[in-house]
Amino acid sequence: VRVVSLLSDYGLADGFPGALQCVIRARLPTVPIIDITHEIAPCDVRAGSLALLRAAPFLPPGVVLAVVDPGVGTPRRGIAVQAQDADLFFVGPDNGLLVPAVKALGGARLVVELQDRGYWLAAPGPTFAGRDIFAPAAAHLAAGGDPNELGDRIDPDYLVQLPTPRYVRGGGGSCQAEVTWVDRFGNVQLAAGRADLLGGPHVLVGILSQGASVPAVEHTARAVRAFGELPPGQLGILVDSYGQLALVLNNASAAALLGAHEGDVAALRPAANPP
Amino acid sequence: VRVVSLLSDYGLADGFPGALQCVIRARLPTVPIIDITHEIAPCDVRAGSLALLRAAPFLPPGVVLAVVDPGVGTPRRGIAVQAQDADLFFVGPDNGLLVPAVKALGGARLVVELQDRGYWLAAPGPTFAGRDIFAPAAAHLAAGGDPNELGDRIDPDYLVQLPTPRYVRGGGGSCQAEVTWVDRFGNVQLAAGRADLLGGPHVLVGILSQGASVPAVEHTARAVRAFGELPPGQLGILVDSYGQLALVLNNASAAALLGAHEGDVAALRPAANPP
Amino acid sequence: VRVVSLLSDYGLADGFPGALQCVIRARLPTVPIIDITHEIAPCDVRAGSLALLRAAPFLPPGVVLAVVDPGVGTPRRGIAVQAQDADLFFVGPDNGLLVPAVKALGGARLVVELQDRGYWLAAPGPTFAGRDIFAPAAAHLAAGGDPNELGDRIDPDYLVQLPTPRYVRGGGGSCQAEVTWVDRFGNVQLAAGRADLLGGPHVLVGILSQGASVPAVEHTARAVRAFGELPPGQLGILVDSYGQLALVLNNASAAALLGAHEGDVAALRPAANPP
Repeated sequence: VRVVSLLSDYGLADGFPGALQCVIRARLPTVPIIDITHEIAPCDVRAGSLALLRAAPFLPPGVVLAVVDPGVGTPRRGIAVQAQDADLFFVGPDNGLLVPAVKALGGARLVVELQDRGYWLAAPGPTFAGRDIFAPAAAHLAAGGDPNELGDRIDPDYLVQLPTPRYVRGGGGSCQAEVTWVDRFGNVQLAAGRADLLGGPHVLVGILSQGASVPAVEHTARAVRAFGELPPGQLGILVDSYGQLALVLNNASAAALLGAHEGDVAALRPAANPP
Repeated sequence: VRVVSLLSDYGLADGFPGALQCVIRARLPTVPIIDITHEIAPCDVRAGSLALLRAAPFLPPGVVLAVVDPGVGTPRRGIAVQAQDADLFFVGPDNGLLVPAVKALGGARLVVELQDRGYWLAAPGPTFAGRDIFAPAAAHLAAGGDPNELGDRIDPDYLVQLPTPRYVRGGGGSCQAEVTWVDRFGNVQLAAGRADLLGGPHVLVGILSQGASVPAVEHTARAVRAFGELPPGQLGILVDSYGQLALVLNNASAAALLGAHEGDVAALRPAANPP
Repeated sequence: VRVVSLLSDYGLADGFPGALQCVIRARLPTVPIIDITHEIAPCDVRAGSLALLRAAPFLPPGVVLAVVDPGVGTPRRGIAVQAQDADLFFVGPDNGLLVPAVKALGGARLVVELQDRGYWLAAPGPTFAGRDIFAPAAAHLAAGGDPNELGDRIDPDYLVQLPTPRYVRGGGGSCQAEVTWVDRFGNVQLAAGRADLLGGPHVLVGILSQGASVPAVEHTARAVRAFGELPPGQLGILVDSYGQLALVLNNASAAALLGAHEGDVAALRPAANPP
């Protein structure tokens, strides 16, 4: 059985995810469908690519249909990508959205451009490729169809790529790391890993203003393993469930405390003495 | 296989859509279920009817359970409607919610009132007909049950109908058209179609104040096929993926620019010269 | 067929519910899954327990995976609980979340602690027990696996319990009752039932300020059966679809009128004369 997993910036109010499901179930009524999320910020390709990357190791065999697509209707390409190390196809726009997840799964074994209009839905306008181009292609692949029928092969090296999140090591165990994700609980995930925590049990952390190289304000974060180890109001830093460093509070929003937003850059350095 | 598709104003916080799914899966554990949307504005029957109309051409064979039902518990009728031109039943309140979608699918072949209490769930109060009356009826129909068992037939001509969205053609290629939908991206769908774009490559457009016949402010919209053709800040007008005219910006909200809300009326006229 | 029903405070933006579904579908691709809700307020165990209690009578046979878990990663226990009177297992943290629903289904027949790490997902950090501990356990049980394989039995009497919502009867048909739920429509559910309505056709109701024993402001609520019986702006009180008293308006928010929030306490007394 192949599972179809969906991710988009469609939101849940307008019926866009429902339209994807209708097109898929009209072809494969009983195919299992997972909604990874449809609440990526509108047109935020970068946030979508990072959410897909987080989901990648857990995706069941099948097809991922991912759409964050501000260029819909323009000559940007639609693509289907087969992953090297997983029984997975990714379908979506060629704008960088799919690449980080595909790379995490060993890279692309095969890429085709979704050119064959015989697989497209007839539509009055070109602004809903998710419904009209990507969903039929995803259903074709979920049914075990040949990807080569969907269009010509293209070279994986020429897929559009986004910049990787900023991460720079400095002296004395310091680093600068981009905020890759602020979740519902206000946890602030960084483009940094366990190795950046080795300086000691406390870390000084601050968000850099645009163009600054040192933060205007620094907070002391205590290295912990879980939220519940922290007293109220005490900032913590931990290795999160995706293996990244995250700044956290116990039952409160670290993002609000720090004034941190996705795309900001945090500066970290070991604290000499615990506060 | 019959698919059950759900639409409501229940929102996703309170567990109301989950209750529908529980009732249906208690009877048909493996029936495929689609959530079209549950984020219709509370009690906005008109918005629900338009969202259902947009979904109608794509619905897989089966049963649609739609609930936007401010009159729940009053003598307003519950109904099941079989569409003429599609293998689809619609179940919900008789308040106009279902009618536009049914009309788009060739009208009603059969309508029954959901009177037989043997199919209802016993409930302590009458305020959750979705769970107690509509969901069991939808499961009965999804299982291939006879609609006539649910209650007496009623005449489709006597179903409650909502006013159709305002659309008036004026002289010189002008028109007035209601805003039928503002989506998550701020695209402003109008009750007007491709023919209203024939006056030229630019359109003057404004939102009418209550009672006014000409707009206080007009914007120039350029006719395009896709969002990505527009430079930043340039208003566009295009035929959307449902065949309706829509006012759009590239990566920004046309609704915010225009101050447009669902139910407003827009005035359109050809622009003599491009700006 | 066993159904897996999900409830959490994960929200729908971050892909957390999708991660649960991925883990479950990697093991059981076609198992039916219901999303009861994922919009419990972050870390609000009490609200989650009440939402689960409301869903309990309608859950199809199978497994409920419920996660509102501020203590994740600390020594709080993970548990699987088999209900006495329903073909249902509940999986989640031992923090009171599951207990009211289990009690409503006859209490616990068997409880095991999720200790066997052979069933856990390997994970870089301990902060996502839903994905790494609870979802694999839920899949094991949904597949018909033996609960005793997941860990040692523990005594149901020693499960963590939350305080029950406040409800105190006073003289002359009066009572004080906690606000157990404010739903999307602004309906205010109380920890009181049909018997508290017997004083007459009108009730005086007010929200108690912290520490007060009588409300600063009282409103007159008319006893009705359905929202639609009320004229605009008239507060009503009815037995809701869960058998609890609720304060309501017709097409408007009673919570906004009353200034009522979940956890507040309302004071009710019979009104001598209709207003």
